[in-house]
Amino acid sequence: MAIKKNSLVDKEKERQDLGFGTNVTSRQARIIKANGEFNVKKLGQSFSARVNVYNKLILMSWPKFFAYIMAFYLSINFIFASVYYFVGTENLKGITSENSLTAFGEAFFFSSQTLTTVGYGHVSPSGFLTSSIAAFEAMIGLLIFSIMTGLLYGRFSRPNPKVVFSENAVVAPYLNINGLMFRMVNEKNNQLINVEVSVIFSRNELDNGEIKRKYYNLELERKQVKFFAMAWTVVHPITESSILFNETAESLAEADAEILISLEGTDDTQADKVHTRRSYLYEEILWGHKFDNILSPVDNTYVIDLNKVGKTIKAELNS
Amino acid sequence: MAIKKNSLVDKEKERQDLGFGTNVTSRQARIIKANGEFNVKKLGQSFSARVNVYNKLILMSWPKFFAYIMAFYLSINFIFASVYYFVGTENLKGITSENSLTAFGEAFFFSSQTLTTVGYGHVSPSGFLTSSIAAFEAMIGLLIFSIMTGLLYGRFSRPNPKVVFSENAVVAPYLNINGLMFRMVNEKNNQLINVEVSVIFSRNELDNGEIKRKYYNLELERKQVKFFAMAWTVVHPITESSILFNETAESLAEADAEILISLEGTDDTQADKVHTRRSYLYEEILWGHKFDNILSPVDNTYVIDLNKVGKTIKAELNS
Amino acid sequence: MAIKKNSLVDKEKERQDLGFGTNVTSRQARIIKANGEFNVKKLGQSFSARVNVYNKLILMSWPKFFAYIMAFYLSINFIFASVYYFVGTENLKGITSENSLTAFGEAFFFSSQTLTTVGYGHVSPSGFLTSSIAAFEAMIGLLIFSIMTGLLYGRFSRPNPKVVFSENAVVAPYLNINGLMFRMVNEKNNQLINVEVSVIFSRNELDNGEIKRKYYNLELERKQVKFFAMAWTVVHPITESSILFNETAESLAEADAEILISLEGTDDTQADKVHTRRSYLYEEILWGHKFDNILSPVDNTYVIDLNKVGKTIKAELNS
Amino acid sequence: MAIKKNSLVDKEKERQDLGFGTNVTSRQARIIKANGEFNVKKLGQSFSARVNVYNKLILMSWPKFFAYIMAFYLSINFIFASVYYFVGTENLKGITSENSLTAFGEAFFFSSQTLTTVGYGHVSPSGFLTSSIAAFEAMIGLLIFSIMTGLLYGRFSRPNPKVVFSENAVVAPYLNINGLMFRMVNEKNNQLINVEVSVIFSRNELDNGEIKRKYYNLELERKQVKFFAMAWTVVHPITESSILFNETAESLAEADAEILISLEGTDDTQADKVHTRRSYLYEEILWGHKFDNILSPVDNTYVIDLNKVGKTIKAELNS
Repeated sequence: MAIKKNSLVDKEKERQDLGFGTNVTSRQARIIKANGEFNVKKLGQSFSARVNVYNKLILMSWPKFFAYIMAFYLSINFIFASVYYFVGTENLKGITSENSLTAFGEAFFFSSQTLTTVGYGHVSPSGFLTSSIAAFEAMIGLLIFSIMTGLLYGRFSRPNPKVVFSENAVVAPYLNINGLMFRMVNEKNNQLINVEVSVIFSRNELDNGEIKRKYYNLELERKQVKFFAMAWTVVHPITESSILFNETAESLAEADAEILISLEGTDDTQADKVHTRRSYLYEEILWGHKFDNILSPVDNTYVIDLNKVGKTIKAELNS
Repeated sequence: MAIKKNSLVDKEKERQDLGFGTNVTSRQARIIKANGEFNVKKLGQSFSARVNVYNKLILMSWPKFFAYIMAFYLSINFIFASVYYFVGTENLKGITSENSLTAFGEAFFFSSQTLTTVGYGHVSPSGFLTSSIAAFEAMIGLLIFSIMTGLLYGRFSRPNPKVVFSENAVVAPYLNINGLMFRMVNEKNNQLINVEVSVIFSRNELDNGEIKRKYYNLELERKQVKFFAMAWTVVHPITESSILFNETAESLAEADAEILISLEGTDDTQADKVHTRRSYLYEEILWGHKFDNILSPVDNTYVIDLNKVGKTIKAELNS
Repeated sequence: MAIKKNSLVDKEKERQDLGFGTNVTSRQARIIKANGEFNVKKLGQSFSARVNVYNKLILMSWPKFFAYIMAFYLSINFIFASVYYFVGTENLKGITSENSLTAFGEAFFFSSQTLTTVGYGHVSPSGFLTSSIAAFEAMIGLLIFSIMTGLLYGRFSRPNPKVVFSENAVVAPYLNINGLMFRMVNEKNNQLINVEVSVIFSRNELDNGEIKRKYYNLELERKQVKFFAMAWTVVHPITESSILFNETAESLAEADAEILISLEGTDDTQADKVHTRRSYLYEEILWGHKFDNILSPVDNTYVIDLNKVGKTIKAELNS
Repeated sequence: MAIKKNSLVDKEKERQDLGFGTNVTSRQARIIKANGEFNVKKLGQSFSARVNVYNKLILMSWPKFFAYIMAFYLSINFIFASVYYFVGTENLKGITSENSLTAFGEAFFFSSQTLTTVGYGHVSPSGFLTSSIAAFEAMIGLLIFSIMTGLLYGRFSRPNPKVVFSENAVVAPYLNINGLMFRMVNEKNNQLINVEVSVIFSRNELDNGEIKRKYYNLELERKQVKFFAMAWTVVHPITESSILFNETAESLAEADAEILISLEGTDDTQADKVHTRRSYLYEEILWGHKFDNILSPVDNTYVIDLNKVGKTIKAELNS
């Protein structure tokens, strides 16, 4: 009896779990969205977890990032200008304007010259209060710009793998059996090394009358390559022990199947770890197709055509 | 006999050791404090090891950090102002004050303008000595602010996992046996990948008449997940080979049992390694409870309710 | 039959794949070029992938890098000078020049003083528009210099292993058989630790009448060393199970053989991962040679002579 | 015969190799010096490998580092001052001095104000050439200070494990046999996690009449701990399969034995990898001693006394 217990435990150990409850399924919802994000929403997050400023600022688009920087810069200057104006622009030597609007403008520009530490000096603070504020602003400016410039460089230097995946996965002949395959190319010219890929297959299964979502690791022909110099066709051989053995396009559609791909590697330039994700829904799997050749030697060089990453040709499956 | 020797050695190898002597126990002291720190105090540390400036400045609260920065900024300016004042404010061209207090104030503001490299120039150094000090201060200012701004950005960009643990661990039915379980949710929206958890069980044992603290690794149903997208219920199956087999709430209380959890993973945003710790004391383990469902599909999205991480319902244990 | 299928799959798993199609060979093209880059060209890259600014700027030579910085600095100042000039140099107080060329020059220098935040102030902006542009330029300057200085420090601090490889690999006697060997020395004085090396052998093979390029992992005597303090002679023992068993210099030349070497380790100074590559073509393998001694104790120190890394002496091979 | 060949190859694989030739021994020279550096000198290094600027600047002492910074700052200013002086100080508006020495001094201070971007402006450049030089210097200043401040922060934030080793290793009773042991304590209050230790034993051996240096990995009771919270006594059990079985203090002295220790782990604060080294010469091994208790519970806290790390008491060895 002890043996039976352990065998159940052992079997359970082999299952994959993405932290999704198994009793939750939704035919419409794919787990990984097209942009690689998980299709999930969290309730009850703390403010800092929900906003997650740093992550947002690193990941947002460049135009949005610069808009934020401009808005922030203008706001900070507006605030300090208001303070200088409130304390009295007569404490800003060099401001001659008697018009209150233009005086505010000059206070604003003085603020910007202090915040950026340009400090031309044609306007300069006088009096204890205004001088103190300016001394404070110069320090704050250095701190603020360290965040801004740190983010800017962090975004600029962020290792950002550009892995092009074939638009479709295929089930193609493989040796004397068949295999589930997809193809990837490193679009950049820098090297990715020690690239490792893992593939998880998920589908709905009937379990005691309930539809449950199950996850299975797909064993691969090769799960790691030393160099990802060119194209890599990842193959799951559909052997008799494969979960896909005897499955068809129809049975996968029926079970709402999805293939989750996770790729990790090291960017050679600065030895940074990189990571990317992709998923194929059952409808993105072509049966009886194989990938067309993508590489050709031209003169003394190997030439690879990125436009052909997803190009397939018909191929009769082994039975 | 050699065999007997080796078997003892082999047995010893399986034991865990946290660097705590085994002959030391204290019923009142938990090993990991509520805030995740080890409950330990070191005598005879060197000054630099005890103070450990960098770590302190990275880990202290934000208000405290800013207070330190302000205090440091004011102190440095005070020191340089004193030097300028001592050398003679007549060497600071542009200072007209004859009052010694306000002259010191102007020297102070000149110092701040030099330290931050604003350098308006309405006050400027003259004479060899004062000019030299100002040249030195400007350089020192750049160095000091590199530390300050480096720390600021280091704190800001520090990967800081926000993993919410269930308030209690439970002993719940698991397959046809029982399991020790706790649940975790990644509170942030960024991804943690390759998350690995290890669980150490410690308790007092009678060994040759002495009470000793012993540590055991608990084998887990799954010790690593590829993605930590949502909730993860970590399970130690209480099989016949488990150290918890035949234990009860009473026997754990008697033995002052504690469960130490260590979680490691990689933050997806910048591929940073993250780490967090947690412990459950025997009194935080609920027997005959299981975790309630935390996830529900709403429209095309999976919704997870963080308030329910620790929510349990009664469940009859397998015998 | 299932067994036969699996045995084919298993055999395929052992093969190496560098992402090169197996049906592509070119006698003239070596896979890794002399400078360690892959000999590959990609068509259809996106603009950002092709340009890959960050990588280029990190990897280019120092003179080129400084030329780029100078050109960029001059261009930015030229652009802003043009804007100031267009708006009207009368808004730059302190410019007295009536000559339009020298006025442009003064606008240019004002721009440089703003961009670098020097801001002497003998020239200063007046009027809303010019002041706004200057405020904008000072901010842009801080952002631009954060990229430039970040790149500069990134290049400067980049862990750059200087591993000297022997000019030739050798096939030398090894114990009572022979071995394929090459020798490496860490030229720098800092430590490389946990150094791991992997060696891939590739050659042309006749497969169903087609010439295909095949890749094989060579098993090593030692594939990792804890410390790479001095010279390391990497050895592939040519046992009966080796792919090189019974091969000769002639058969390797015939098959256009190449040995690809990848070395990874950790730089001790900042615990940075480092990586380097090397390849030997068949014509760079010396048969019946062994490496000469490179190390000698002098007084209380071990002395290693880098000029002898590739020095070999004749040695009769075991049959 | 093939089998015999392979068994030799297999035996060779188990040997350790630190890149030292095996036929080189020197009774006086220990391999790792007291400060953790390898006792090695390289001839024929390239200039950049020998100087290795970045490493030197990161690892040198703080006083030396600041001395370098000061010297560099003074030199750069001296150079630019010379250029301004040569071009003519009449182009530096605001310099009134007619004495050539004090004019040079003013040029020097103007240079420092430009280099640091303070730019008070009481002295300002005029004329195309001087203005150009100043524009160049301001840019150079930003670049230079990015190196200086980057190095400063790199040194400041560098994870620097402070592991205190016992002054001696001991051979002490261990279970029913004996063990070679040494003790380590993490002196700092931050956590080291996933700490792994490896121990290499080296000695002279007679091999075909020649004295050769041989290296052996010592198997450990525990080679990794999850947390290095306190004291860790590393134990090599001297079983019958140990290379130390039947060895004595005398035989180790005879063979010039040395134990090399390498420790790696992760600093919890920023998830940085850390690494440290240590060696014990045969004369630093105490036979028949064991380590005294170092830990005691005080109130609700565990207290560890760093002064007792190396404290041993006599203990009769098992025979």
